[in-house]
Amino acid sequence: MLGLVGNMGLAHLRYPTAGSSANSEAQPFYVNSPYGIALSHNGNLTNGEELRTYLDEVVHRHINTDSDSELLLNLFASELAAYGKSRVNNNDLFKALKGVYEKVRGAYACVAMLAGYGIIGFRDPHGIRPLLIGERLKDDGLKDYMLASESVVLKAHGFQVYRDILPGEAVIIPKNSMVPEFKQVVPMQSYTPDIFEYVYFARPDSVLDGISVYRSRLEMGTKLAENITHQFKKDGLDVRKEIDVVIPVPDTSRHSALQCANSMNIPYREGFIKNRYVGRTFIMPDQKQRQSSVRRKLNAMASEFYGKSVLLVDDSIVRGTTSKEIISMAREAGAKKVYIASCCPAIRHNHIYGIDLADNRALVGYNRTDEQISEAIGADRVFYQNLQDLIECCVKDNRIKDHEMELALTPVVSRDDTIDSQILTNKTSPPIDSFEVGVFTGSYVTGDETEYLSFAERARAVNEKIKNTAKVNRGIESLDIEDVKASVDISIFNSGDYS
Amino acid sequence: MLGLVGNMGLAHLRYPTAGSSANSEAQPFYVNSPYGIALSHNGNLTNGEELRTYLDEVVHRHINTDSDSELLLNLFASELAAYGKSRVNNNDLFKALKGVYEKVRGAYACVAMLAGYGIIGFRDPHGIRPLLIGERLKDDGLKDYMLASESVVLKAHGFQVYRDILPGEAVIIPKNSMVPEFKQVVPMQSYTPDIFEYVYFARPDSVLDGISVYRSRLEMGTKLAENITHQFKKDGLDVRKEIDVVIPVPDTSRHSALQCANSMNIPYREGFIKNRYVGRTFIMPDQKQRQSSVRRKLNAMASEFYGKSVLLVDDSIVRGTTSKEIISMAREAGAKKVYIASCCPAIRHNHIYGIDLADNRALVGYNRTDEQISEAIGADRVFYQNLQDLIECCVKDNRIKDHEMELALTPVVSRDDTIDSQILTNKTSPPIDSFEVGVFTGSYVTGDETEYLSFAERARAVNEKIKNTAKVNRGIESLDIEDVKASVDISIFNSGDYS
Amino acid sequence: MLGLVGNMGLAHLRYPTAGSSANSEAQPFYVNSPYGIALSHNGNLTNGEELRTYLDEVVHRHINTDSDSELLLNLFASELAAYGKSRVNNNDLFKALKGVYEKVRGAYACVAMLAGYGIIGFRDPHGIRPLLIGERLKDDGLKDYMLASESVVLKAHGFQVYRDILPGEAVIIPKNSMVPEFKQVVPMQSYTPDIFEYVYFARPDSVLDGISVYRSRLEMGTKLAENITHQFKKDGLDVRKEIDVVIPVPDTSRHSALQCANSMNIPYREGFIKNRYVGRTFIMPDQKQRQSSVRRKLNAMASEFYGKSVLLVDDSIVRGTTSKEIISMAREAGAKKVYIASCCPAIRHNHIYGIDLADNRALVGYNRTDEQISEAIGADRVFYQNLQDLIECCVKDNRIKDHEMELALTPVVSRDDTIDSQILTNKTSPPIDSFEVGVFTGSYVTGDETEYLSFAERARAVNEKIKNTAKVNRGIESLDIEDVKASVDISIFNSGDYS
Amino acid sequence: MLGLVGNMGLAHLRYPTAGSSANSEAQPFYVNSPYGIALSHNGNLTNGEELRTYLDEVVHRHINTDSDSELLLNLFASELAAYGKSRVNNNDLFKALKGVYEKVRGAYACVAMLAGYGIIGFRDPHGIRPLLIGERLKDDGLKDYMLASESVVLKAHGFQVYRDILPGEAVIIPKNSMVPEFKQVVPMQSYTPDIFEYVYFARPDSVLDGISVYRSRLEMGTKLAENITHQFKKDGLDVRKEIDVVIPVPDTSRHSALQCANSMNIPYREGFIKNRYVGRTFIMPDQKQRQSSVRRKLNAMASEFYGKSVLLVDDSIVRGTTSKEIISMAREAGAKKVYIASCCPAIRHNHIYGIDLADNRALVGYNRTDEQISEAIGADRVFYQNLQDLIECCVKDNRIKDHEMELALTPVVSRDDTIDSQILTNKTSPPIDSFEVGVFTGSYVTGDETEYLSFAERARAVNEKIKNTAKVNRGIESLDIEDVKASVDISIFNSGDYS
Repeated sequence: MLGLVGNMGLAHLRYPTAGSSANSEAQPFYVNSPYGIALSHNGNLTNGEELRTYLDEVVHRHINTDSDSELLLNLFASELAAYGKSRVNNNDLFKALKGVYEKVRGAYACVAMLAGYGIIGFRDPHGIRPLLIGERLKDDGLKDYMLASESVVLKAHGFQVYRDILPGEAVIIPKNSMVPEFKQVVPMQSYTPDIFEYVYFARPDSVLDGISVYRSRLEMGTKLAENITHQFKKDGLDVRKEIDVVIPVPDTSRHSALQCANSMNIPYREGFIKNRYVGRTFIMPDQKQRQSSVRRKLNAMASEFYGKSVLLVDDSIVRGTTSKEIISMAREAGAKKVYIASCCPAIRHNHIYGIDLADNRALVGYNRTDEQISEAIGADRVFYQNLQDLIECCVKDNRIKDHEMELALTPVVSRDDTIDSQILTNKTSPPIDSFEVGVFTGSYVTGDETEYLSFAERARAVNEKIKNTAKVNRGIESLDIEDVKASVDISIFNSGDYS
Repeated sequence: MLGLVGNMGLAHLRYPTAGSSANSEAQPFYVNSPYGIALSHNGNLTNGEELRTYLDEVVHRHINTDSDSELLLNLFASELAAYGKSRVNNNDLFKALKGVYEKVRGAYACVAMLAGYGIIGFRDPHGIRPLLIGERLKDDGLKDYMLASESVVLKAHGFQVYRDILPGEAVIIPKNSMVPEFKQVVPMQSYTPDIFEYVYFARPDSVLDGISVYRSRLEMGTKLAENITHQFKKDGLDVRKEIDVVIPVPDTSRHSALQCANSMNIPYREGFIKNRYVGRTFIMPDQKQRQSSVRRKLNAMASEFYGKSVLLVDDSIVRGTTSKEIISMAREAGAKKVYIASCCPAIRHNHIYGIDLADNRALVGYNRTDEQISEAIGADRVFYQNLQDLIECCVKDNRIKDHEMELALTPVVSRDDTIDSQILTNKTSPPIDSFEVGVFTGSYVTGDETEYLSFAERARAVNEKIKNTAKVNRGIESLDIEDVKASVDISIFNSGDYS
Repeated sequence: MLGLVGNMGLAHLRYPTAGSSANSEAQPFYVNSPYGIALSHNGNLTNGEELRTYLDEVVHRHINTDSDSELLLNLFASELAAYGKSRVNNNDLFKALKGVYEKVRGAYACVAMLAGYGIIGFRDPHGIRPLLIGERLKDDGLKDYMLASESVVLKAHGFQVYRDILPGEAVIIPKNSMVPEFKQVVPMQSYTPDIFEYVYFARPDSVLDGISVYRSRLEMGTKLAENITHQFKKDGLDVRKEIDVVIPVPDTSRHSALQCANSMNIPYREGFIKNRYVGRTFIMPDQKQRQSSVRRKLNAMASEFYGKSVLLVDDSIVRGTTSKEIISMAREAGAKKVYIASCCPAIRHNHIYGIDLADNRALVGYNRTDEQISEAIGADRVFYQNLQDLIECCVKDNRIKDHEMELALTPVVSRDDTIDSQILTNKTSPPIDSFEVGVFTGSYVTGDETEYLSFAERARAVNEKIKNTAKVNRGIESLDIEDVKASVDISIFNSGDYS
Repeated sequence: MLGLVGNMGLAHLRYPTAGSSANSEAQPFYVNSPYGIALSHNGNLTNGEELRTYLDEVVHRHINTDSDSELLLNLFASELAAYGKSRVNNNDLFKALKGVYEKVRGAYACVAMLAGYGIIGFRDPHGIRPLLIGERLKDDGLKDYMLASESVVLKAHGFQVYRDILPGEAVIIPKNSMVPEFKQVVPMQSYTPDIFEYVYFARPDSVLDGISVYRSRLEMGTKLAENITHQFKKDGLDVRKEIDVVIPVPDTSRHSALQCANSMNIPYREGFIKNRYVGRTFIMPDQKQRQSSVRRKLNAMASEFYGKSVLLVDDSIVRGTTSKEIISMAREAGAKKVYIASCCPAIRHNHIYGIDLADNRALVGYNRTDEQISEAIGADRVFYQNLQDLIECCVKDNRIKDHEMELALTPVVSRDDTIDSQILTNKTSPPIDSFEVGVFTGSYVTGDETEYLSFAERARAVNEKIKNTAKVNRGIESLDIEDVKASVDISIFNSGDYS
């Protein structure tokens, strides 16, 4: 977290994306010229190389890291410096942001701070990555504001009233007035949040772009149940006779799996238990660690598997290594048959907007049919959600939000208290009916990204080499499959200047 | 962890028990006279004060801390010193342990290490706290051994074959022979493990004294369902009409709650979601933290509560503060009625064997009827498991263990491989049919503990004062309800002396 | 030290100067726009406030600290940015430095690094603070270079050949060519090094601006002896009868004191011994620390004082507190008479060029005659060096340098080897015959500094308040007299780009 | 420092001695049985191996380290345990110490603490290593006490009144009474302090066994001057014509050298200056560090050497490597002739009492005549102090102590105040007229130590091997000659029990 300047703060935890893992830097980034600006961002730019050249050759700014945030910060700084003004105002900032939008391609949700002025938030014109603003009433009757990438972060700090920043929109909260000003800096090109947030990435208790992650996941369970039932029926089989028990792969898929089991009227069991023993191991040098990371993290309760046909439900299948291990554990525990279902369709393409799943060639779904995938991971059969179903799961929650939104919010302040909030102005925001789904289709909302994909592949190869060298040096045999969900939060807040 | 001496190691993490929280010390403890001994223990002694006097006045050993482990270590050391031998053997050690057993009262599972000799494990004559020994086949065909307080710890280190140390039994694994020698040092006085391990304390994937924690918890759900159904029926009501949804209080009660819901054929929902946001809060000094620790840890999914009669299921109800808060959250989320069920009976007495729940006066069950408890925590009604049912839940798993044990173990080594294991010698260990249940009845297996209880009360008062002073000094308004499950492991291993 | 970029590095340790002690920052400072520049400096600017306003209002650069180095860096950066070039060359850099020289007033010796380009050194037009460049022949036959504020630093790193940067001169060593280019960026306004370097500040084994610190200090002893002898003679007294022994105040004055004693043919004794016991004290809370910091640092050897008339020799007398304490210690040890001599004249004015002695009102010499000073510090008589004598001490060493310089340098490379060194080009540098002596006269080489002095006084008052608050908060009764000599080094080196 | 128990404390810094450097442990050592005892010691035992066997086989105490302090502590503990008393008194402790004295051979000055009882000091029967007790009057009129190995340590803590513990004497200061009780536990076998303390080891401002280190060093200069003058005269030469300047090797020899120069009426000059630059070096990987550690620590001032015949004065010549380097530096600086004088005789034997100089084979004086030594170190001639002269230097100071002692002490309390001090009871302590001088003669006060010498040689070989391996692993070419004077203090204090 940046040292507090006045009464503002900015925090960021972001997972390194493709091409950057080797030497990315701690966010936020800071420049002192002009004015002193700090910036954090969430997402991934697809024209970073071009921006890098521009910054070096045209505006002569030295970039120290591979981080896109440093690019965004310096672009913003150079746009702002162009006016050469002693003191800027909201309009200058919005104009500078317009310049940034025009140069940048990709997914970005940004929070920034201008020293002595205030905080700023802006989001890419497709709304791929989420960004919200929250409002909090303080004891002294004044309000303060926070920008964050998930609603739970706002709620955890007591910002009970919030709304999403729209694609192409920006907001400034000057510390003097503490009145947020919103502006549609460039036209919304689409309103297509990354559907992977709902499938896997976001916390279940978050509400993003008006869609409850929790309820969309319940829907995924319902749709998945319909799909599986239908597929067995096509083969003349009754799902209830084919599957004895539904077992989630903890933790993300729990809600979908429970709903899926309920929909099919098949028992649901927590057959895998997370191993909570985290002690340092005494393993002697001559006893190599043969257990995979999955086996160290999960224990199978044999009584739930023994002699049964089980349906494992996971949020998604990426490389297939985890699925393969889990299926193998189920069989060792005595399962007769092991089916596996994924809450989302087969992942066959790179994720290019900030969630670095894997290179597409490393994806088990890459150039494989469902049958081939099933065979690769050792399942009796694999079931994937249909893409159209997945979209409907999210859209459905969206449609009903008017009624239930309040509940999801469980605001402490009453409805009437919040009616005059400065920020609840986008109640009429267009309902979302499409999403960024490139990982499934290979077609990305920002257009043709062939060039970026080949750049990322080269960058990844370089990083892989660095990592492997590191592994060899440390005597590590195989790196754990890292959980990319880890910690990806950006946030900033402004409680005004009362000093 | 103690610095490795030869090829042995000893680790311990233990939660401070009553009377000791102010200044207990990191385990293990060590004395150099005689021979060099290190010891860790799990449990609580009820005649510690008497032992302290004995050590000071009779054997003149200086005790630096309030830890019972230091007492046990010095008792063992002084017994051993009495022989005045240059080199001890297994028999000397067993004899010294007999001396320890004769002087000590309470619950204790101990692991110790004699420098240059080997490792030792022993367990109190009632078997109150668990202790297991695990065996592992190494790449070189040799075996090594580990002692631990939970089977999952053994399994996590690859010790797939294991058995419980019996009440009053001890085991020595000399580093030269690496052949474990077992001995019933004193007669088993009872075989009564602390039932609270199954209810709450142990990890669900552990098997303790032949009883699967996971399956005993499922049974608790079944029995609880019967009980609740019965109680509604007594009032002429149908439980399926009175309760719309069963919701667990995460995480311990999840398995019981799911089974309970299934048994009653009522929908099960994960209506509370653990807040995984762990960022540092930016809360300004003038904005006092009004949210309780429960509210910071859990979010209620409004759609699961709104307009419904909900049954919350928790493992136990201790002080009642958590229950009260959770019930209040359920109501705020729109619940029509809020019932709460506890997987164990009402806790009305001190836990004196190493799990420091609370002083009995702080227990919501202390001197209150069920109706009074229900009122105190704001529930529409509270349901408790019957004690006899709870015991049966554990006994039942015990009875069926012969068949299913292997499955629960999922041993990598086959049955045949393990048949000649040196340690699988207590296959005919007596089936357990009673347990330590003093927290429910006030009657403890070690006999009348009135004196200890009044000592503990005084000690607690002193500690409370220290804590409060600390709180005032730090400006803390109210301490979080600490999770006593935190980290309570002891373990030791011996891979022999090949140097 | 800045992380190494290529094969260059930059290090800095600098003592905070007037007005900055409260929140100065670790050097070096860095800006990424333009090009990436890091800079460290030694000295003090007297028009810092004006520069601060200029940077904010005209070039819109945010200054985070009170450090003059940050001002110099941003000035340089803004001058360089003005050209808007993609790639700069030596000429651009010299031009930019010219811009810096024109805006800045005060004392400054700077080392800077341009990312990917090379290192830069420049020195104020009066040469107040020292700056040297050293050359080193590497094993591969190539040369590398280092810039530093003292010759001993260069020698310690094996840079045996070196020369001073002249007032108003700059040098650039590009990493590609590794050929240093020197340029007289602005005309030399005077060549007046701060005489206080020779009196007190520099290490005795340094040679600055061609003057050996060691030998100038010997001269100070000779001149002081003449002066003292003369003064006694004026009163009709023989110095050898009046003074029994000459005793230095360790460590700086040792060389002068020895020479002074020899010149007068009076015994020299090390009567004060530095206390080398540095253990943590066990002093109990009720035993207040009554010993002053001087008494903790020095022990008087009674046999050297008892019954004798002693002449104490110190480098300078600043606040007088140390002198007073030492004189008192001498009397307690039995001295009959205690005279004290200072190697420099009475200090009666602020030091404004980077050695923060004290506010002038805190100087014992402020508005006091010699007799009044003598009384204030409890001496029987105080002797000061004459200013003209002091200047001659330094000039004399300067005159003889042609012959002896080599010896002082003890170069490993022979004379012939170094003859064609790229850097030995200022052999004809003008002999120095005047110095910055403002602390003695109140007249400063940069002109009328009345405005700065009143600013510094205000800043000091603010800092004093902050310090006092800190002291009160920590329960400190009196702060030690800090040794401003502590650690004041800047240096940078460039070993080229061979990758 | 051990955590304070009551109002007592114990601190120790000790340099590892022969055979222990590889794995010695931080002092003090502690045992909890019996009673809780902590102990630190200064010195070296010569029958450590024998004691180690005794502790293992007879009293069964596990020794973890190579430290003699651990041996002494466990011996003392086992003696004390033999009484089997619940509470001990002074007599028990003195009796136990008698048992320790009877088993131990070598040099030892010990401070110990008995938990809840008080502090203890005792010193070997030859008084080889120093130990003093100091008294301090507190603000409340009560007195407290401190034991330490040097008087400066006592004075630094305000203990102005002190006396030496005699050989074979012990003192106990119980925390209840705070009245020190002294007892001659075993008869004094000799009163022979290690003369190396005065030559080199002790701080110059210390007074040990009534002898001022400072004044004995002045005497060494006088005697050395007589000796050198005499030797030149034997060759028909006038020392004042042969030697132009006397130059000390800083820091220990400074006082002797100055006195030596004065005695011969030859100029004294500080021609070597300690390099106070301590910055981290930037030396590139390809530039090996060719400068020896001596050259990094000292700079020669060429003007003091050029064209002159110099006499270098050092406290002692051990391995000769430092002398050789320094002589070579003097020649490089232009010295015509380089003589070197040592304040003590040639060191030809091991130091076995706690100052690990070097194995005797590594000593330049081992099996070499003065001429051979001179040649080995590159001097024109080497001068050694005569042993009898050295002894007289110390004895002389001793004789005059009655008159001057007070001065050396510069006590704050007046003579009258101290007259009734509990501790000033050994005013009639026998004047010392012999010393431990084994390093010069090979004859040690504790008798024939052949067996120990051969043990130490083997131990040293093992340690050397470990060090070399470490060096190779770290890529270090040659370890610096470490300054064994570093940090060798033991101390303990007792301010009573007023709580």
